[in-house]
Amino acid sequence: MASHGFWFLGAENASGNGSQSPNTPRAWCQAAAQKFSGGIGSKLCALLNVGEAEKTAQAPVKAEDGSTAESCGCNKPCNCSKATVCFSDLYATDLLPALNGDAKTMNFLQEVVDIMLAYIVESFDRSTKVIDFHYPNELLQRNNWELSDEPETLDDILISCRATLKYAIKTAHPRYFNQLSTGLDMVGLAADWLTSTANTNMFTYEVAPVFVLLEYVTLKKMREIIGWQEGHGDGIFSPGGAISNMYAMLLARYKMFPEVKEKGMSSVPRLVAFTSEHSHFSIKKGAAALGIGTESVICIKADERGKMIPSDLERRIVEAKQKGYVPFFVSATAGTTVYGAFDPLMAIADICKKHDIWMHVDGAWGGSLLMSRKHRWKLNGVERANSMTWNPHKMMAVPLQCSALLVREEGLMQSCNQMQACYLFQQDKQYDLSYDTGDKALQCGRHVDIFKLWLMWRAKGTIGFEAQIDKCLELSEYLYNKIKDREGYEMVFDGKVAPVIKARMMEYGTTMVSYQPQGDKVNFFRMVISNPAATFEDIDFLIEEIERLGQDL
Amino acid sequence: MASHGFWFLGAENASGNGSQSPNTPRAWCQAAAQKFSGGIGSKLCALLNVGEAEKTAQAPVKAEDGSTAESCGCNKPCNCSKATVCFSDLYATDLLPALNGDAKTMNFLQEVVDIMLAYIVESFDRSTKVIDFHYPNELLQRNNWELSDEPETLDDILISCRATLKYAIKTAHPRYFNQLSTGLDMVGLAADWLTSTANTNMFTYEVAPVFVLLEYVTLKKMREIIGWQEGHGDGIFSPGGAISNMYAMLLARYKMFPEVKEKGMSSVPRLVAFTSEHSHFSIKKGAAALGIGTESVICIKADERGKMIPSDLERRIVEAKQKGYVPFFVSATAGTTVYGAFDPLMAIADICKKHDIWMHVDGAWGGSLLMSRKHRWKLNGVERANSMTWNPHKMMAVPLQCSALLVREEGLMQSCNQMQACYLFQQDKQYDLSYDTGDKALQCGRHVDIFKLWLMWRAKGTIGFEAQIDKCLELSEYLYNKIKDREGYEMVFDGKVAPVIKARMMEYGTTMVSYQPQGDKVNFFRMVISNPAATFEDIDFLIEEIERLGQDL
Repeated sequence: MASHGFWFLGAENASGNGSQSPNTPRAWCQAAAQKFSGGIGSKLCALLNVGEAEKTAQAPVKAEDGSTAESCGCNKPCNCSKATVCFSDLYATDLLPALNGDAKTMNFLQEVVDIMLAYIVESFDRSTKVIDFHYPNELLQRNNWELSDEPETLDDILISCRATLKYAIKTAHPRYFNQLSTGLDMVGLAADWLTSTANTNMFTYEVAPVFVLLEYVTLKKMREIIGWQEGHGDGIFSPGGAISNMYAMLLARYKMFPEVKEKGMSSVPRLVAFTSEHSHFSIKKGAAALGIGTESVICIKADERGKMIPSDLERRIVEAKQKGYVPFFVSATAGTTVYGAFDPLMAIADICKKHDIWMHVDGAWGGSLLMSRKHRWKLNGVERANSMTWNPHKMMAVPLQCSALLVREEGLMQSCNQMQACYLFQQDKQYDLSYDTGDKALQCGRHVDIFKLWLMWRAKGTIGFEAQIDKCLELSEYLYNKIKDREGYEMVFDGKVAPVIKARMMEYGTTMVSYQPQGDKVNFFRMVISNPAATFEDIDFLIEEIERLGQDL
Repeated sequence: MASHGFWFLGAENASGNGSQSPNTPRAWCQAAAQKFSGGIGSKLCALLNVGEAEKTAQAPVKAEDGSTAESCGCNKPCNCSKATVCFSDLYATDLLPALNGDAKTMNFLQEVVDIMLAYIVESFDRSTKVIDFHYPNELLQRNNWELSDEPETLDDILISCRATLKYAIKTAHPRYFNQLSTGLDMVGLAADWLTSTANTNMFTYEVAPVFVLLEYVTLKKMREIIGWQEGHGDGIFSPGGAISNMYAMLLARYKMFPEVKEKGMSSVPRLVAFTSEHSHFSIKKGAAALGIGTESVICIKADERGKMIPSDLERRIVEAKQKGYVPFFVSATAGTTVYGAFDPLMAIADICKKHDIWMHVDGAWGGSLLMSRKHRWKLNGVERANSMTWNPHKMMAVPLQCSALLVREEGLMQSCNQMQACYLFQQDKQYDLSYDTGDKALQCGRHVDIFKLWLMWRAKGTIGFEAQIDKCLELSEYLYNKIKDREGYEMVFDGKVAPVIKARMMEYGTTMVSYQPQGDKVNFFRMVISNPAATFEDIDFLIEEIERLGQDL
């Protein structure tokens, strides 16, 4: 899966043919306006122009609203009646819970929704830019972003919303390949909006009854997919893969030396952890935070495809033991950040078993392949792990943040992390206290990350996620085949080429892909295919665009 | 600010008179239907009934939509045209990025928005229940929450959305006093919806240009308010107060012993931290995670009002030094979790200076008082701290999650946490790299928590937040005065009274307040006043309700 100049990892529903020539915003705006006979087209137009000069851009929006001043008579909270509301006379204090704030609130929220709907439609349109790039100092000057003592009108607030989206990166754009989290799922988005509306906290069943149950149901399903008997075990949704990996390291240490909780690292021998040289930096970050130290993370050699070499792992474990150190944790990677490589889990599991070491699988990126009958063999052996990180916000395209830590042993998280705060986890409540999951967590308050994954799973079914993932891998293979014999790609030996092409890419805003060096290799593009909106044509576009932007280099 | 049976901490716009007699859902539904002449009333009605029997509840929604089947002709993405879309024939795969998915997507999202708008209006209505309580096993049976292989229709997805909100706790309800995070701010909500729509990550300017700048602007403003010269310093928005406190402890340790990052705790002498016996459990949780150990957190005595006693702090520091331990961290609490007490920061700062110890202020709850010219004296001395936790998602009522860690010394976070991953923090990018904040964080990906705070601040102004906080404190004083001489409250010596009243409260669903014991005190209600929707009448209602529910005890 490798080539000089390109390494790529693993999109779905097609959506028409992308225009190869990016139009100007104004030209696009006219096309959009034709597409929608009503106000939405003009709204898109306004959206594109707002932010250039905030105050002047306000005028056309108003004019447009003014021109449809009569109500359509449907009496529903829709655009139609918005024309009767003048947001420039209203303030946040006019909204709920203000007296008679219902209608104003609905009109205000509906206006924000319209801005978002226009942005969403625009994001999926290939003829729009991925990014309207400005340097930090320039962006600071393009708008008034300062905070002041006095309130602004709701009209100003709406202008800020438009400006924020104008300068945002369109992560839903079919040609955005820049990060492991790409795309925007519509059911996931709806679920995230609903989560914000419910505005609660995961720590107790008392304040999040439905979400706590959905987390229980979903974690169990994920453990079944891993292959743990009857889905037994434990787990939690954490604020991201780095924190999930840190949880795993914390649990491994506690399992071996439970006294560390009370007595700290000074009560235990020198602990050492093992991970491949291609693993994610969060393993070292976690070791630094947990008081283990980065020097106690031993990096195991990877082969030319980026996979951990098991014989080197065993050699280093034996070596560490000979020095009197205690190996306590091996983190195998299922889908490395740069090459997308899968460590050989079966061989690593054998070594961990032999030496009685906690085996963790960092599947933040590649864990989602478990949803694919065709590709899940790459994770064979994961069922033998003690813990696994799996981020549905990456290849499964669940909106950010959504990261799960799955743990084979039940009850360990609770005993490792509990502090039994009596104001939150009262033992004399009327319901089954096993649903109060908060004391398992490092956090106290914990954001609701479950609903978007659960609702997307209901909407797609397991087979829908499978199709999405299979498509990612298919696009990846397509790209590989297309560039493997193509002139120009193998010959990139100058590390300055990729940064220059990337800078031009952002200035033109046509597509986005990340780059980096690795080991003795100079800067190359790291192609991420996780965007459900991307098609074969988008891959073709990317290749052409890289060549176009780099032709003089 | 204390009384047996009640301890309370610190709401805003009034919204009419609350009805003292909770109506049945059906009665409320009829009232709501009268309030709105159009479909929204019926929608509220449907919302209330859905979930009882999911499939039957579907009928009235359809009937209602069917009855307004003709379009209003406005051609905008509003309710009017929804009647033409039959969600029971559509699946997630029909939405964007599907070909011609624009209109279907807008109709689907609009339907979800309508469900949410109905929920929001209902949440602020005092005649509705705070909670429709069911025991976990019962709730599991009330709906099909399972995940399956096959996809569900968008109609089923909408039913799931309605059911989820039906059983949610209405945290926006004016009579929800249960947690430190209460209320639902409409501008904050709009901002959180927009954040979800932008679906990006805080780690680099490249993928979150506007949000990175807004975090910069807002953190600087917060540091100015703390009183650090010209707002100099550093900071980050973290996933919650517990993580913010853990960051502070990590920084304090690194500042004193930078070698701990590479070499771990075995390279340093035994470190000890100090905090009051009333402090939040996250201090101990952090110490356990960081390898310091809970036994190295020395709890300092608090006075009868819950404030740390400085002389006891100094005594314990001297004692620890005599034992050869190294005091490295004092966490003072500004607004304790249970009593809402403020530790004497000036005296603590003197001690920390004398002994050269990092001073942290955990102002997760009480930090917001800095926004009030009337009440900020309670935090006098905070400007002398090395770091501060301040959660705008508590008394400032920003939607969850929104927690800031502020640090006086610039650059320390970066050197403490950086791992310089070359695939993310490339040093040959075209823009000013100081805007790539990701390497300061313990996390790799980081959720965008800034936009809702920034937008609310713009909408309210500093004076708007001040008014909101002053109102909370005013309500708190009102409650104190009302119950201090009231019969029944001082005499609660039986620890079983509060749990029984709380259980009945949840079953009736009329209001929610938390309880707990503390030290030698039996269970008492912990009254939290941070809900901007609460009024004097709601406080009256709470008192009456506690008496009504507990009259036979």
